[in-house]
Amino acid sequence: MLSDEDLYVFDTTGFLVVRGAFDADEVRRFRAELDELSATEPYANTERFDDLTAHSPTFGKLALDDRVVGRARDVINQPMRLLEAYALRRQRHSALYLHGGYAELLDMPDRTVGRDLSIMHTYHDGRIYCTYVKALIYLSAIRTQEDGSFCYLHGSHKANFPLLRARARRGERRSLIDEGFPTLADVFVEAGDLLLLNEALMHGTRRKLSDGDRTLLAFSYGPTFLVDWRELDGETADLRGQGYVDHDVEEDFVR
Amino acid sequence: MLSDEDLYVFDTTGFLVVRGAFDADEVRRFRAELDELSATEPYANTERFDDLTAHSPTFGKLALDDRVVGRARDVINQPMRLLEAYALRRQRHSALYLHGGYAELLDMPDRTVGRDLSIMHTYHDGRIYCTYVKALIYLSAIRTQEDGSFCYLHGSHKANFPLLRARARRGERRSLIDEGFPTLADVFVEAGDLLLLNEALMHGTRRKLSDGDRTLLAFSYGPTFLVDWRELDGETADLRGQGYVDHDVEEDFVR
Amino acid sequence: MLSDEDLYVFDTTGFLVVRGAFDADEVRRFRAELDELSATEPYANTERFDDLTAHSPTFGKLALDDRVVGRARDVINQPMRLLEAYALRRQRHSALYLHGGYAELLDMPDRTVGRDLSIMHTYHDGRIYCTYVKALIYLSAIRTQEDGSFCYLHGSHKANFPLLRARARRGERRSLIDEGFPTLADVFVEAGDLLLLNEALMHGTRRKLSDGDRTLLAFSYGPTFLVDWRELDGETADLRGQGYVDHDVEEDFVR
Amino acid sequence: MLSDEDLYVFDTTGFLVVRGAFDADEVRRFRAELDELSATEPYANTERFDDLTAHSPTFGKLALDDRVVGRARDVINQPMRLLEAYALRRQRHSALYLHGGYAELLDMPDRTVGRDLSIMHTYHDGRIYCTYVKALIYLSAIRTQEDGSFCYLHGSHKANFPLLRARARRGERRSLIDEGFPTLADVFVEAGDLLLLNEALMHGTRRKLSDGDRTLLAFSYGPTFLVDWRELDGETADLRGQGYVDHDVEEDFVR
Repeated sequence: MLSDEDLYVFDTTGFLVVRGAFDADEVRRFRAELDELSATEPYANTERFDDLTAHSPTFGKLALDDRVVGRARDVINQPMRLLEAYALRRQRHSALYLHGGYAELLDMPDRTVGRDLSIMHTYHDGRIYCTYVKALIYLSAIRTQEDGSFCYLHGSHKANFPLLRARARRGERRSLIDEGFPTLADVFVEAGDLLLLNEALMHGTRRKLSDGDRTLLAFSYGPTFLVDWRELDGETADLRGQGYVDHDVEEDFVR
Repeated sequence: MLSDEDLYVFDTTGFLVVRGAFDADEVRRFRAELDELSATEPYANTERFDDLTAHSPTFGKLALDDRVVGRARDVINQPMRLLEAYALRRQRHSALYLHGGYAELLDMPDRTVGRDLSIMHTYHDGRIYCTYVKALIYLSAIRTQEDGSFCYLHGSHKANFPLLRARARRGERRSLIDEGFPTLADVFVEAGDLLLLNEALMHGTRRKLSDGDRTLLAFSYGPTFLVDWRELDGETADLRGQGYVDHDVEEDFVR
Repeated sequence: MLSDEDLYVFDTTGFLVVRGAFDADEVRRFRAELDELSATEPYANTERFDDLTAHSPTFGKLALDDRVVGRARDVINQPMRLLEAYALRRQRHSALYLHGGYAELLDMPDRTVGRDLSIMHTYHDGRIYCTYVKALIYLSAIRTQEDGSFCYLHGSHKANFPLLRARARRGERRSLIDEGFPTLADVFVEAGDLLLLNEALMHGTRRKLSDGDRTLLAFSYGPTFLVDWRELDGETADLRGQGYVDHDVEEDFVR
Repeated sequence: MLSDEDLYVFDTTGFLVVRGAFDADEVRRFRAELDELSATEPYANTERFDDLTAHSPTFGKLALDDRVVGRARDVINQPMRLLEAYALRRQRHSALYLHGGYAELLDMPDRTVGRDLSIMHTYHDGRIYCTYVKALIYLSAIRTQEDGSFCYLHGSHKANFPLLRARARRGERRSLIDEGFPTLADVFVEAGDLLLLNEALMHGTRRKLSDGDRTLLAFSYGPTFLVDWRELDGETADLRGQGYVDHDVEEDFVR
């Protein structure tokens, strides 16, 4: 489903934007559907709609739509499953600090490690193999940094060095989404655009300063041996706990 | 817990044998405990005891024993969980064909792929990261090929080429455990020995031809985002199916 | 000599710009020194000064200057040597098509290959290992694309897929330096800036359309077992020929 | 020229033995040819015949023989050249300590590094790419360890950890060729056999204790951008020195 150049771009940059993957009618319908669902507000000025496929047949169908699944399959290349489905509707003064990155650190009780296998990816014989791929479907246009644009660090999906902790150690406790960084870049989108993301990319969003909502749907896919996404603080004593343990993210460090 | 040389051996060969990890009393106790449990017979002359930790406090405790878990952690280096716990008690004329291998093929409905991310492993900054590690605790001595020794292909845990399908295509439908191969090797053990295995290694056992049982306990560990081991035929239509889809193994091919 | 963030940037992007590495006096002196040397004109509107260290003590010293060598060493991490030293002075209507790229193809008499070991690079235990590193010292400011800016494809130093031949096959025989590409980006510099380049990055320059010269010095470094740079058409019959055989570059394809 | 299984074996083990590559007449002719050449004695009980192709048309032709070159090409996959051609004729009490290994350490004046790019190898899209490949043509049978058999550490051509220095630090200053190691293995050959070797494998020979000579021819191949083999102590001050700087080998450590 992805062309050779789509694969080149996804491989070298860690993401791919498909312009106009969904038309205006669909965007309208998805926005209306969200209005019917209830949300939590985990972050300031941010509504989160969880478990979309359980609460909405429309979104249940969308999670299986070939425009999304077909593209995800081309970069996962494993029998796969849906790991999570949620929406975010954000208003002025919301933000999302940087997270991801291929070599950020994770403290375990007796050691610090520099790989998170839940975002491992590799290449073999003409195919990309990603463990965790997110499909973002934008229901708002985001045309400026003030609209809270998606931003990322170039090449961070294949980074060999960690970045965040070293900065924190030096006392640089402000987010790169505010401060900038030589390799920080933005993606601007229209409603209906699809962004296919290798979760190994270090990414976040700028601080939203403009009026109007910033709304998107997110569907994550991975191989069939992965559990549904849920946060886990760490290994449990009975070694039966399931979930995803975050390595360093900006949220751990910035004020 | 593993020494530098243990790590060197595990990294370069895909497994590590810890001689006498458990003493004769423990072996006796584990064997007695198995006698209390019920088994299925999935293969000829082979009893399988499933879900050991659910049925036996002794084995529940063993699954958390630092002699096992501590070593597994040194080659997984992620917050981890127990993925399966079972025992096999095999008699004369049982066998286990070769499976695993880092580049064997898997047919998906519309493509063939050459990586199985459930057995991915990598190295970064002084640490090995394995997705699936099995700890085999031997409760019988296996001193000859006729005892059904563990056998494996040298270096297959890092193989770049597939092996099995090419053989099958040429009509070579007998198992390498019978035929041999230039790089096929055996491991001989005593009761109480522990074999720590990177599941990416292509391995199996020789055909057991001697009297007496061949009994072992197996505990598998992996990162916390992995589901319990269960076989899955392939991706399910609702993309919610969970499990492990096997790539090519000898069982698919040999007569 | 490179900071942690310098290494992060070089690793993730394939190059590093050191602003103001040389001061205005030095730039003036280097420009004056070039005026004393003779050049060839291998491309239209482009003078090339070869073998700088043989013809100029000033440049001989510069090739060993720690500001250049120290930085190159931090990304080569091998006992090293100087592989070439040249300057380019370009005028209006000069251009440099894209070359490099980590997975572009090379035809050998009986096979096509997708790696060029002369630009291999890897990472191990906290260090980057590059085979071929070029240090570009700019003696002119290049502030716009019309000045013939250095341009490159994001992440192409770690590309798993080839790009150029597929385009040529489709008949797309215009250079990306004119056409653009979603991941093509520019670097703007001042005189005195140093650009440290992993030769595996696909890079070139825009077509120079502005007045004034575009002048730079280039010093290439690599491990001591590499021969001096010279172009070689291919393996010689006596297997004694020495040199560098180019894989696909835009020059092979564009009109 | 190499079959799929040859490639599997070379990839997974780091070498390949081709039985009977040269017939008894050829072996006789090669031995007679050596008798005409002069040798040095760089090690006890070991004659070394250097630069074979310069001194013997027979060996000049052999260095280009497709049985050797064709196989080397299949694991180098680059335009290539001959890097060295020599013979060793060894007698009782000669030995060759272990050298090679993919992650052994090298001290540079200001840092220690863990990769030697002159023995780098990788895999991409169905092909192996080796930087340094040696073809050993045996002119004597070596049927026991006492004959001074070729020995190697399993999987050391892809080792992620260093081995030798850690041992030396602990005061273990005897060679593994005498002491053994869990993963040390031997190769036994007949006269006329060819051993194709990835130089990244840690290898050496047992101590020769039997009567009769142990004679072989060695031809090394690599990409065209490599200099002829010569030992270099380290980077030269003018950055023009050419050659190969050894990382840790047993010879540095054993008594």
